[in-house]
Amino acid sequence: MYHTLTIQTQKDGFYDLTGKVRDIVASSKIESGICVIYSPHTSCGITINENADPDVQHDLKIAYTQAFPEDSSYRHNEGNSSAHAKVSAIGSSATVFVEKCDLLLGIWQAVYLVEFDGPRTRRVFVKVIAE
Amino acid sequence: MYHTLTIQTQKDGFYDLTGKVRDIVASSKIESGICVIYSPHTSCGITINENADPDVQHDLKIAYTQAFPEDSSYRHNEGNSSAHAKVSAIGSSATVFVEKCDLLLGIWQAVYLVEFDGPRTRRVFVKVIAE
Amino acid sequence: MYHTLTIQTQKDGFYDLTGKVRDIVASSKIESGICVIYSPHTSCGITINENADPDVQHDLKIAYTQAFPEDSSYRHNEGNSSAHAKVSAIGSSATVFVEKCDLLLGIWQAVYLVEFDGPRTRRVFVKVIAE
Repeated sequence: MYHTLTIQTQKDGFYDLTGKVRDIVASSKIESGICVIYSPHTSCGITINENADPDVQHDLKIAYTQAFPEDSSYRHNEGNSSAHAKVSAIGSSATVFVEKCDLLLGIWQAVYLVEFDGPRTRRVFVKVIAE
Repeated sequence: MYHTLTIQTQKDGFYDLTGKVRDIVASSKIESGICVIYSPHTSCGITINENADPDVQHDLKIAYTQAFPEDSSYRHNEGNSSAHAKVSAIGSSATVFVEKCDLLLGIWQAVYLVEFDGPRTRRVFVKVIAE
Repeated sequence: MYHTLTIQTQKDGFYDLTGKVRDIVASSKIESGICVIYSPHTSCGITINENADPDVQHDLKIAYTQAFPEDSSYRHNEGNSSAHAKVSAIGSSATVFVEKCDLLLGIWQAVYLVEFDGPRTRRVFVKVIAE
């Protein structure tokens, strides 16, 4: 059993899923275990990073574009190879502990969908596993 | 309990594990849960990325070589520090949902072993956890 | 239920958690399953990489600094955006199989906390899930 979130992205960047994932964990009534947040797409990823200062998200967009720039030797004719490369670095899922029917995040952590090829309609799968 | 796949890699690149992992999930008779695909090596990784156009794999090899190039200040005398760096970015495992005794992948997703230091004989561990 | 490790980091680099995680797995009496090692911070990560030659860790520090350098266009006024970018590439958690009440690591693998913004007092959460 799993839940599906739908997110309409606009430009590339970070979309905070934390509140919606917390709601799913609470409704699962699972006291203790893990929660896996999974993207079934190949040009957006899931990551955990800072939730306080939006400038961090601004800077990470620059950082990933510099680390994985477009390149004239790329062959993929959809023109989004850079997005695919970023997804394999960011990852397609995150695993977070569940305690007391809630996500056990650090105080500065949030769970993000990271859009590298927007705007698109994205789905995110969420599953809670009891221990 | 876990299963072991053996993959003989040749040159660096992407080796599609999806069919073999699907067979393991089907034979497990586990209706719903998660499947973890794990590499016990330190110069190859596991990732989920596009399954349709082989040019994506071609482009990702270039992207990771540009992001983590060989460097004259590296000390490790096996000469594969770049491969180790790529593995920590790609990751040593992937987690995929299991529903109806099958992997719940997105339509464009496949599970890959990514070889950064081939040719080698690689093992991949696969485990299915019921929820 | 989960365990908390406390690590006092000094300079940036790799801190081997393997022995302490093995102790937690052994004391859990869980024969077979998975172990998740999780960082609740946003400027350090968790990775699995080589345990034999300390030069690999030296080289990976260089590799990640080159892939995600400081940049004059960064806005985050704590000045650690590069660390945040590295964390999203390395990841905030690792998942390792448990068999016979032990971590099923490859012969050259260790589990590391990777400090990108030290010195700091870091916590690492560890949970063992039976299959």
